[in-house]
Amino acid sequence: MNVTKAVITAAGRRQRTLPLQSLIDRDGVEKSVLTILIEEVMAAGIDEIGVVVRPGDEQSYAQVAGNHGSRLHFIHQTEPLGHGHAVYCAREFVGRDPFLHLVSDHLYVSRGPQGCAEALVACATAEECTVSAVQATRESLLPHFGAVGGRRLPGRQQIYEIDTVIEKPAPTEAEQHLIVPGLRAGHYLCFFGMHVLTPGVMGILAEQIESGDHADRPGHGFTLSAALAGLARREKYLALELAGARYDLGIKYGLLMAQMALALAGDDREEVLARLLELLAQRELGRQRD
Amino acid sequence: MNVTKAVITAAGRRQRTLPLQSLIDRDGVEKSVLTILIEEVMAAGIDEIGVVVRPGDEQSYAQVAGNHGSRLHFIHQTEPLGHGHAVYCAREFVGRDPFLHLVSDHLYVSRGPQGCAEALVACATAEECTVSAVQATRESLLPHFGAVGGRRLPGRQQIYEIDTVIEKPAPTEAEQHLIVPGLRAGHYLCFFGMHVLTPGVMGILAEQIESGDHADRPGHGFTLSAALAGLARREKYLALELAGARYDLGIKYGLLMAQMALALAGDDREEVLARLLELLAQRELGRQRD
Repeated sequence: MNVTKAVITAAGRRQRTLPLQSLIDRDGVEKSVLTILIEEVMAAGIDEIGVVVRPGDEQSYAQVAGNHGSRLHFIHQTEPLGHGHAVYCAREFVGRDPFLHLVSDHLYVSRGPQGCAEALVACATAEECTVSAVQATRESLLPHFGAVGGRRLPGRQQIYEIDTVIEKPAPTEAEQHLIVPGLRAGHYLCFFGMHVLTPGVMGILAEQIESGDHADRPGHGFTLSAALAGLARREKYLALELAGARYDLGIKYGLLMAQMALALAGDDREEVLARLLELLAQRELGRQRD
Repeated sequence: MNVTKAVITAAGRRQRTLPLQSLIDRDGVEKSVLTILIEEVMAAGIDEIGVVVRPGDEQSYAQVAGNHGSRLHFIHQTEPLGHGHAVYCAREFVGRDPFLHLVSDHLYVSRGPQGCAEALVACATAEECTVSAVQATRESLLPHFGAVGGRRLPGRQQIYEIDTVIEKPAPTEAEQHLIVPGLRAGHYLCFFGMHVLTPGVMGILAEQIESGDHADRPGHGFTLSAALAGLARREKYLALELAGARYDLGIKYGLLMAQMALALAGDDREEVLARLLELLAQRELGRQRD
């Protein structure tokens, strides 16, 4: 299996403006969030990139993508029918090929030199199947994520075979269906916002969308989780626990924490730590003097 | 003396886009930098606000100012002739009144409940003269600021009488002219980016601009520092050392540090500190495991 295409979904109400924000990347260079994501994808050896946008957003996206602008294929999602529907909008771009999928309101910071997308694509290429990146996540955060149930592959520390997917599960639901042996108590495997998907997922999405069956979580439209739950029943479907972290840019202080994570993982680590400590010292001395 | 007007300069090349950025203010609410500055001004009892912009920037500024948009008087600076020239563009708006002046690429975080602008305006009102807010600043940072020389007023801990102003002084120049008795060694009083100016400054700026005398620092156009140096020779001119800090948004990681300072000084302090410590712990544990 050879992954040569990527799909970034950016048409969601919360997602639309986040890719336009500027951050300083790990290499110390100021870039748009979209550019950081494009470079994550390209580091995985992929340079055909489809971006699912609301009609009218192409120009501002192409602008902030700088030199990469001409590389992007813009795909319209004309109605806000959910994350699964946004992926489905890319079916012609994807054709019969497997593809990497990222959401545009997360940033991914790997621990080592290998990028998160690069590690995920390497795993999917070796295993020849759909692989979702996951992160062990505290139960209290379940309302924010899709979560999977399954079991660790024998002899493989970070790879799990998935048999269930539930979008934003309630705690009781998670306890019943999503306990993964070997994880720390109170933790679940939640989506990292990054997947390598086989084209089979488009068939399942087509069935769900044509039948209007999007009731797994009212108010979320057609979720990708529902389609992946279907996929788990038909195909080999793995989860890879990545040595890295995802940062949700859409939550309060999300951009701040993502910027801090990039800085602490990058070339400017010492400088930013020093300035941060200076700031903390100033504030604490100030509080003591008052 | 009654200060009823404020002038925010936002036409500089570096300054233009910074007021449009979004940050989460001390009260936990997401606002544009421009809105945070407007609220700083209004907390000082001022609601006539002139904003010096490049022609064409009015609409995006009015948009990010939200409810305050209709309160703003836009003033054009058509040529980039320096900070002093930008202030001079506001001469008709100012008329014969003293005014508060802020630059748009800094944020001000006071230590107590009283705002920085509020404290500065109270001092100018009581002293009936021009007052510049200053901050004791390490010698190594002199290349970034205007600096003043003078002496502490007897019996007043934080007020200085200014007799010299030099824009971005060289270290030897600072040693010769700007040593202020009583400051920590290696520290100088540098501008905070906030002044209450008497209309006399407009007369001095007019003389300098009409005579084309802008040679105090080549490449900076007509500086405000040159005009304030002239003012110091003619009028009573004080500096107020504020209990607070200024954050330059235009430098690398400037927005990050300003956001962190707002969060640590505000309602979300505990939450942000906890998330910051969690992030640091994750990174450090990650480094140990690798």
